[in-house]
Amino acid sequence: MNVIIDLCVVPIGVGLSVSKYVVACQGIIKAAGLESQLHAYGTNIEGEWDEVFDVVKKCHEKVHEMGAPRITTTIKAGTRVDRDQTMADKINSVREKL
Amino acid sequence: MNVIIDLCVVPIGVGLSVSKYVVACQGIIKAAGLESQLHAYGTNIEGEWDEVFDVVKKCHEKVHEMGAPRITTTIKAGTRVDRDQTMADKINSVREKL
Amino acid sequence: MNVIIDLCVVPIGVGLSVSKYVVACQGIIKAAGLESQLHAYGTNIEGEWDEVFDVVKKCHEKVHEMGAPRITTTIKAGTRVDRDQTMADKINSVREKL
Amino acid sequence: MNVIIDLCVVPIGVGLSVSKYVVACQGIIKAAGLESQLHAYGTNIEGEWDEVFDVVKKCHEKVHEMGAPRITTTIKAGTRVDRDQTMADKINSVREKL
Repeated sequence: MNVIIDLCVVPIGVGLSVSKYVVACQGIIKAAGLESQLHAYGTNIEGEWDEVFDVVKKCHEKVHEMGAPRITTTIKAGTRVDRDQTMADKINSVREKL
Repeated sequence: MNVIIDLCVVPIGVGLSVSKYVVACQGIIKAAGLESQLHAYGTNIEGEWDEVFDVVKKCHEKVHEMGAPRITTTIKAGTRVDRDQTMADKINSVREKL
Repeated sequence: MNVIIDLCVVPIGVGLSVSKYVVACQGIIKAAGLESQLHAYGTNIEGEWDEVFDVVKKCHEKVHEMGAPRITTTIKAGTRVDRDQTMADKINSVREKL
Repeated sequence: MNVIIDLCVVPIGVGLSVSKYVVACQGIIKAAGLESQLHAYGTNIEGEWDEVFDVVKKCHEKVHEMGAPRITTTIKAGTRVDRDQTMADKINSVREKL
């Protein structure tokens, strides 16, 4: 089962700047070989369900390891079984109508 | 790693009433033996990370199986390594200050 | 237009304990006279759109005023025009099928 | 108070293709003159709080008007009072560390 997620990991208790944690998560996503796209309030990731959610778990483990005692994460997860649809397909289906 | 999530699974393409899908997901959560609490816009679940996210995956599989061609799910996921905290602890820490 | 939301306000840069900010937000919701229900990962609120979102804004203003330099909030917002549906209706439509 | 949001409006009860509703919402955002960025699972919007949330409300009104009887929307909303930060700043602070 393929999934497209939007992931936003927020470390709590480590001050105001969270970019170094976001950078670490980007590294985990890249290492997993998954297609992804950073935006201003999260990162879109697509791939096989288990691989994608393994990345989410590894991000939590890494951010804790880096010193964050508490994390709150928001995930949107979309699956469909009627047809294949990539992140690029979703954006294109909007753009071609604009 | 323990996690508390808030899960809201939304089937798309099956009309307006989604309660039968929510009921099916409640069955999956109960079958997994996980602590949970239904609210008006989702369900809180707590447990070991892998068990909790296995439930999320099973909910997607089940809702597709029941006929929903497309699903969009929202998840909030909280972990902390400084101390144990249950769903009941979170609510109590607010209630005792009210 | 009536709306049911699920609101989760997370102050950043004020340490690990966020319950006093949640308590302050509960006060704002009550003061607005809106129906609400606290759960372990947020609060459900129902009411007229403008009143509900005015509460969300007041929560941000208050939490900043209390000293949080940064806030990240997650909101789910549901509206329907086919029929009236309260938070209690949503829960009951699941419970009666369980 | 400035806010950056991530907005994902999901019409329910209108079948599987939601792109025409997304396109209509893009039009509302543009008409409001707000900075925005479409991604594969939502749209980032930045601006003054009231203007941004007015757009969210107009999207709900428009999508209902277009025939969707039910809508479920997910919003992430970030504010900070320690300093100004645009959507571009957020992305750049990650990119320069990559």
